[in-house]
Parts: sequence; C-alpha cells; structure tokens
Amino acid sequence: MNFAAEQFASVRELFDSMLDADPGYSAQLAVYRHGEKVVELVGGPDSAADSVTGVFSCSKGVAALAFSLLVQDGLIDVDDTVATYWPEFARQGKGAITVRQLLSHQGGLVGVQGGFAMEDYNDLPAVAQRLADMAPLWRPGSGTFGYHALTMGVFLEELCHRVIGERLQDVYDRRIRLPYAADMFLGLPESLEPRFRPVRFAEQAMPGFLDPGSLAGVSGNVQAGNLLELPNLRSVRAAGSCSGAGVGSADGLARVYAGAITGVEGVPAYLSPETVATMSQEQVWGLDRVFCDTGAFALTFMKAHPRMDFGSAQAFGHDGANAALGFADPLYGVGFGYVPAWNEEGGTAGRGMQLSAAVRRAILAA
Amino acid sequence: MNFAAEQFASVRELFDSMLDADPGYSAQLAVYRHGEKVVELVGGPDSAADSVTGVFSCSKGVAALAFSLLVQDGLIDVDDTVATYWPEFARQGKGAITVRQLLSHQGGLVGVQGGFAMEDYNDLPAVAQRLADMAPLWRPGSGTFGYHALTMGVFLEELCHRVIGERLQDVYDRRIRLPYAADMFLGLPESLEPRFRPVRFAEQAMPGFLDPGSLAGVSGNVQAGNLLELPNLRSVRAAGSCSGAGVGSADGLARVYAGAITGVEGVPAYLSPETVATMSQEQVWGLDRVFCDTGAFALTFMKAHPRMDFGSAQAFGHDGANAALGFADPLYGVGFGYVPAWNEEGGTAGRGMQLSAAVRRAILAA
Amino acid sequence: MNFAAEQFASVRELFDSMLDADPGYSAQLAVYRHGEKVVELVGGPDSAADSVTGVFSCSKGVAALAFSLLVQDGLIDVDDTVATYWPEFARQGKGAITVRQLLSHQGGLVGVQGGFAMEDYNDLPAVAQRLADMAPLWRPGSGTFGYHALTMGVFLEELCHRVIGERLQDVYDRRIRLPYAADMFLGLPESLEPRFRPVRFAEQAMPGFLDPGSLAGVSGNVQAGNLLELPNLRSVRAAGSCSGAGVGSADGLARVYAGAITGVEGVPAYLSPETVATMSQEQVWGLDRVFCDTGAFALTFMKAHPRMDFGSAQAFGHDGANAALGFADPLYGVGFGYVPAWNEEGGTAGRGMQLSAAVRRAILAA
Repeated sequence: MNFAAEQFASVRELFDSMLDADPGYSAQLAVYRHGEKVVELVGGPDSAADSVTGVFSCSKGVAALAFSLLVQDGLIDVDDTVATYWPEFARQGKGAITVRQLLSHQGGLVGVQGGFAMEDYNDLPAVAQRLADMAPLWRPGSGTFGYHALTMGVFLEELCHRVIGERLQDVYDRRIRLPYAADMFLGLPESLEPRFRPVRFAEQAMPGFLDPGSLAGVSGNVQAGNLLELPNLRSVRAAGSCSGAGVGSADGLARVYAGAITGVEGVPAYLSPETVATMSQEQVWGLDRVFCDTGAFALTFMKAHPRMDFGSAQAFGHDGANAALGFADPLYGVGFGYVPAWNEEGGTAGRGMQLSAAVRRAILAA
Repeated sequence: MNFAAEQFASVRELFDSMLDADPGYSAQLAVYRHGEKVVELVGGPDSAADSVTGVFSCSKGVAALAFSLLVQDGLIDVDDTVATYWPEFARQGKGAITVRQLLSHQGGLVGVQGGFAMEDYNDLPAVAQRLADMAPLWRPGSGTFGYHALTMGVFLEELCHRVIGERLQDVYDRRIRLPYAADMFLGLPESLEPRFRPVRFAEQAMPGFLDPGSLAGVSGNVQAGNLLELPNLRSVRAAGSCSGAGVGSADGLARVYAGAITGVEGVPAYLSPETVATMSQEQVWGLDRVFCDTGAFALTFMKAHPRMDFGSAQAFGHDGANAALGFADPLYGVGFGYVPAWNEEGGTAGRGMQLSAAVRRAILAA
Repeated sequence: MNFAAEQFASVRELFDSMLDADPGYSAQLAVYRHGEKVVELVGGPDSAADSVTGVFSCSKGVAALAFSLLVQDGLIDVDDTVATYWPEFARQGKGAITVRQLLSHQGGLVGVQGGFAMEDYNDLPAVAQRLADMAPLWRPGSGTFGYHALTMGVFLEELCHRVIGERLQDVYDRRIRLPYAADMFLGLPESLEPRFRPVRFAEQAMPGFLDPGSLAGVSGNVQAGNLLELPNLRSVRAAGSCSGAGVGSADGLARVYAGAITGVEGVPAYLSPETVATMSQEQVWGLDRVFCDTGAFALTFMKAHPRMDFGSAQAFGHDGANAALGFADPLYGVGFGYVPAWNEEGGTAGRGMQLSAAVRRAILAA
C-alpha cells in the first residue's frame, strides 16, 4: 500500500531510512499536493495503514479549521471582544480581550488553579465557567503570549456553542470530516474502536520540582497525571475535547489540511483564500511565557520558525505532544500529516519536521 | 532559637545541609504561613538571630508594598500618566507614560548619563529632577522593558512625596514596619547600628569593558563604584533609598510580605485582595533590555519564571544583588525572607530559590 | 599615511596587532571626534588608503542619514501612515502602518515570494509596486519586528521619491557626500571605478536546507545567489540600491556619521540634535523574527546592545554583511568607519566591534 509519486521518491527514501535505523519506529506519513495524494507511507510494528491513534495538540489545529468556517460565515469577527459572544467572559478585567487575542494565546488563561480533571473536559459549560471566572495570569494586551495547552480547545468549543448552539466537533464532522472522508476524529466513534492503537511512550524520569501552582504547572495541568495517557482512555477519546483529545491517522490529518486550501480529490476547498489569510496571519512571535522558548502563533495555528521549521511563511498547522504534525502550506499547495506510534521528541530535530523538509526539497527540486 | 514547624522539617534539613557543605556560609531564613511563623533559621559565622544587613533590591519590593497603600487609598491610579502627579515628568516626550508603565520598567529611564553619586540619592528633589529632564532611552509604550536598578526607588519616592507630601519611607515605617514589628528598614535608625553586619563579598575580577555610557552602564550606574559596598556606608543605609539601600533580616522581609496578604500574628493584612491583584498582576515578560535575559515584572515586583522560580503564578516579590529574597505567595498564604551574609549568585540556582522550592514542596506534600 | 592622535595610540596598537596576527587581514579604520579626524589607519594586502569596496547594509545607515534630512525639513512625519505618502501601500491591510513602524522593521515586508533578481532593484517603481501589493508576513502593530535586509532601502527610496520626486541617492550626494567630501557612495561613479576593490570572501559551505519560501528565505532573498558577490557587479554598485549596494571607505563612512552630529572640519552638522533624537530613538528590542536572535532598531539605524556593542546608549549606526561598520555616537562626539577587505564574521566578536570599544576606552581614559 505504500506509495510515493516519483517526484517524492526522496521522501520515501528518508522514511525508509528512519525505519531501517530503528526497528521499533512506527509511523504514518501522508502528503497531498494540489489536492491529490502524492505520498502515503506506513511502517513499523505499531502502525498500520488503517490505524488511528492520539494526535494530542494536533487536535487544536483541526478544531481551528472548523472554527475558521464560523469566521468565514461571518458568525464571528475575530476583532470583537470575546464577551460579545460570551458575556460572562468579561469578568475579572477580561472585557476588552478580543477573539484575536484569545486565539493567539494572549489571554493569560492557560489553566486554572487546582487544575482540571480530565473528565471535567466532558462538561463544557462547567469548564468554560471556571475560565470565565478567573483573572488572567498576565495583563492581556501587554504583548505577552503563552501556550494555552489545555484551554485553547475550550475557547474554540465555547465560542462555537455560544454562536450557533452546536458543538464544534459536530461542525467539524459535518463540514470537514465527512465530506473529505478524513480519518481524523474529534470524538472517536465506538464503531471505529477496533482501529485505535494506544499511544506508546517510554516511562519518563520526572523532571525537577514543578509547582502545580506555577504558571508552567497551571498550564500543564500537572494534577491530571501523565497527559500522554489521555487518548488511551476511551472516555477521553470518545468526547474528543478540542485541546488534545483528537484521534486520527496521518492521512486524516493531511486531508483536513489539504481540504482547507486546495480541496481533495475533486471536492473543492472549504476555506476561501481570504479566510485562510485571516486565520493564518502570524499574530505573535517571541518568547512564549509558558515554554520560555521561541514561539509563533496565528489564530490557534502555529507558524513556522527555526525551532518548528515545517513550512513556508504561508504555512499553518499544529504539532502534538507525541510529535505528530499536521499542516497546510498554501505556497506549495501541500497538506501534510505525520503520526508516530511512539512518543518522540518534537521540534526541528523531530522526524516529522525532517520529513516536511524533505517534501519541500522535493517540490523545489522539480 | 532555630525553629521549623514539623511540616517544614525538610526545609530545615536543606538549610542545615547548606551550612554543612560550606563552613563560611551564613544566612537567615524565615517563613510565615497564614500569618504564623513556621520557619526561622539562622546559621554560619556571619549571621545572627538578631543581625540585619543590606538586602539591596529587596528594598524595591518593600517600598512597593508601602506604595501599594497609596494605590489602595485611591491616591494614585496606576493608569494615570506620571505627569498627573509629577508635571515636570512630561518633559522630553514623556507626557504619555503611565504609572503602570513606569513601575513595570517600561519608562526607559534606567539611569542618567554621567551617573549618580550615591550621596545624590539623599537629595530626592534633585535626583527626581534629573530623571524628569531626561529623554527615555527607548520609545516608551513600545513594549520594551528593562530593569531600573537604581531609579525605580526614586519614582516610588517622588510619586509618594508629590501625592501626600511625605516620604515613602515614613509611610512604610508608620503603616508597615511598626505595626508588624518588622526588622526591615528603609533607613536604619542610629540606635540599631549595633545589630548591623556589613555585607561581605569576594573581590570580583572586573568583567570586560563596560562603557559607562552604554545602556547597561547607565543602568548599573557604574561610576558609583562597587555597589555591593553601598549598604556598608552609614550615610547610605541611614537614608534608606528605596532602590537598594534597605537593611533588614529574613524575618523582617517575611513579616512585611506576610503582613501584606495574610497579616501576621493577629494583625490583619494591610492590603486588600483587590490591591494585591492590581499590584501583583504581571505587566511585562520577555527579554529585559538591561539584563538581556528573561524577566517578568508586575508593578515594581518581580514575578516568578524559570530563571527566578520562587513561587506560584500569584507570587510577587523581589531579590537583591546579594541574592537576598523576599516575597509573598497568596496561593499558599506564604511570606518568605532569605538574607545571606555573603554575596552569592542569584537566579534559580541560588540557595534562596532552592529554599523557596523546599517550602512549596513541604506545603504540597501535606 | 597611517595616523592616530596620541590619545588613540591604543587603537592603533590594537589595529596593528590584528594585522600582525593574520597576514591576509586587510582593512581600513577611521574615527572622527568633535569633527576632527583622530584615527585613520589602513593595512593588509587588499586595502589601500584610497580604495573603496562594498559596505553592504552599512548602506542602509547612510541612506537613513539622507532620509533624516527629509524628516528634518518637515517633509515626512514618521507618525503618519506610509499610505499618506504612498497610497498604494495601503493594500492588503497595510493602511495603518506608520512610517515609524515600517522603518523600525515592524512592517512584515521582509521580502517577496519568488524573490527579487538583483537587477530588479534598478527599477524602483516596479520593486516598490511588488511590496505595496503584498500582505505583511506578520500582523503589523503586534510588536513583532524582523530585519528587512533587502527591502528597507526600497522603502527609504520610494518614500523620498514620492515626497520630493527625486532619488534618495541624489539627495545624499547633494547634501551629504559632496559637502562633506565623503568617499561613501550610493552609486559609484564610473570615474571612480579604478579605486574599487572587489569584496573578497571564502567559499562557504552551504548551511542546511533553507526553504526560499520560508520567512528567513524570503528575507534573505536566497534566489539571488551569493549576496556577497553583489557589489562586485558593476551594474549593482552603479545603481547604489540603498538596501546594500553602497561602496565606500572607512573614512567615507566615518565622515557621513560625523557630519550628521558634529560636522566635519568646519562644515557644520547637517542634522539638528532634535532630528538626531527622533531618528536614533530605539523603537524595538527583543528577538528579531528573521534572525531569531536579539536585535534593537531605531528608525532604520541599529542601536547598540550586547551582541552588537558598538557604542553608548546614544549611538546609532549600521553594520554590513562583511562586518563593515559605521556609526555616530553623540555622547562621545564620535563618527566611526570600519571597512574590511575580506568578509569576516560580525557581531560583538568582530574586529570592528573590538576597535569601536578601543576608541571608547581611549576616550574614557583621557
């Protein structure tokens, strides 16, 4: 079943060399160009052509694609205040925070003191209420941004529900997953459970003391235990919380991104170039307050930079805690998905990043 | 006299291990929780239970606690321009700078060309005048911030004097030091001189060329000579300039911070939760223009971040050039003071930071 | 011909020691103080007293000096929008970008997809049009800045042409180069070709994959080939594009900067202190989006910081890709020029930076 168009033979060679170098390595890779599949590869003992597994924060990117439809439909203006759509959000000095600021990780609501239990995410109104009630952890509008690892999905979900009275996951299913036949789920149906492979990870030595009340501790919601276990819980992957509970395949990820900008296999793109431009414009760059390392964000989406070098200046996407990666690159007409079976280190050195660079090299060499 | 409540036995063990590891090491440590003393430790040849010494920029935090009372009383609105209270400050394009910006190290007035002599600080109107006359070293409002090592105290003092015609040091004495019986002085009385121990420090190799006219040189006021000598001059510690001339003990530091948020031993807190929220909200984060390293500031107060990891997201305080440390952490109801006798390297690796982490671990383990 | 006033003997010693240490090292150095030449040194096989060569982005600083005259004359208000002077610039959401933002590298127009061919720069209207037509690569006004290596000159040139219908290079010639007899050319006259020495550089190993469509690739205009070759093309140095095609000597660079602040040899300064203050005020500091390293910019000019430690807080200037360096330091009344014959690594460790520090040490020791 493995396939790579001739132009992308070098991508296949790189992927094969990764498999050769590490017998335990297992992953899926899929690339679409101008709406047609040009690469689909799978290898290793723990991935299969039809398997799906947790993609962690890649879920944020997928959810943001669905959210983009609400912006495109004129239902949400990102320059409005959040409180325009969600009045309770104005509490504690948050009345002036715009949707643009909130979705670009500037809101200062990276988590709640005391943390969320994972099952809390299944009760959206309650989770949203706790965030509406809190004071921001930094002065909004100050230019500070920090990764909202476990709350960004709540904002996307709550705004959607306030505006159209519907779950964002349902919007996603109806307008993206089903029309584009994408094996990428915000809520894995029971019937597809046989295709699910648990996320695998080595036991990690705990890092040094991390105060759960510190900004990093709140953001990481450290009370919740090992987040890498999350998608392995049926209740979590069934609910499909948009912050990180999505489950999918590399092909599924690639299809939803390709669908956004080029369409897929004759089904036209679901986002207009104008919507893509709005949602993918870089909003913040610099030292992320949570990671204390460089970061660049559009509206929810990550933008490429040297530490996260996945595409051109037009590219937009998201990685996951296990180094899964999904993005669209309008400059090259590319939709890309990468899903490893075992947690691996992310960043530029990650295999997904290397494979994304190989795709670009192949395109540029043509 | 050394004391640690049972819950904090591990803190005492850590402190004792530090003393064991280095025969010259001398320091005081004090911790209050919910207004009651839970730790008071002293050790080493150069510290005593009742000794006081220079705490350098911890003075800024102490002065900011007193300044907070003026904000609480409605005498100063931090969103007003500085010129509202201090009209001459508007010179040289500084009319739009707000109190909020100035106190969060965004004013660009980190020092004056030519430097201040230390005795200059004893003439507040003259020092304030020189700062009012100067052009900012960067565009205010641009988001740039840089540590105002030797001018922040002048701003706090001058604003206080303009608003109530009284020295900030006197407000501090009347409303904080005396009611809370805190051995922490902005101006050490002559009668307490016998308790003063000089700050001790190793002769340092001079670093490479530092242009006194450069931004770092102006900020460090390098003409003034070795700033570590400062509190050792009677005239300096008598005047108690708020930027760095304070003298105190670990217990004194811990009491003023505990007094702010929980009160101490039955005397109620002098700041309301609302005032604490206003003064301790993080205003800036990123690369400090003076240090060229990461920093985070509230209104004068430092906020915790990985390089300065002293508390929860709610904590606020300040360290000193000798690695003294004082802070309050409302999340845990903690007031903390640490005062070493010898100058030591600051930052996360410092002993004060390690002890602060031990306090939190003890609380979280309970 | 080599000359150093007695006060600057140590600068000459340092320069001589650099020549002694490396037989191939060739460079010119010139320093003016209070309008009089105090240092003029040349050495090595590839530099001569009257030779000129490419100074790369030092050209930006020289062009910005000429642009400063337009600001001084009241023809351009840097707080106006760019579109005030250049209506087409308002396209693609750029209507609110001010001259101040654009000239401080905040515009997000670091280059165009597909790149410019070098001959494109000789057709200003066409280049300017392509920039006016493009969407910014980040949200303008967000505080993000990134080095506009190959477009900053276009902005300076186009604004000048729009306002006075004249080439900025001609303004420079008439009001700076000729009155101050400066061997610094934005467009090298044919008659001076015999004095031109090609820029020399070692073949560099190509760095890893750099996507020409990435932000760094767009900014570096990587399609253009090795930019170090540029001034070696007669057509490029004849046109004198302001981004990087200037050709000059160390004396020429020093004279244009000295002319700006102190005048030279009896010819009074061409900029007023007010204009100098406006143009040299630091506008941005932090992590440059292109370099992903620290940077500080005034209006076009670089400001000193630890990685680029060329002067006092008042200094302003620019370096070039070959580590040429030109700046003025009003605090010390200094105009400085350094031009190496071979490309060398820039930054603080560069020889020009070391020589600039030696100049300041000599002044401070007096």
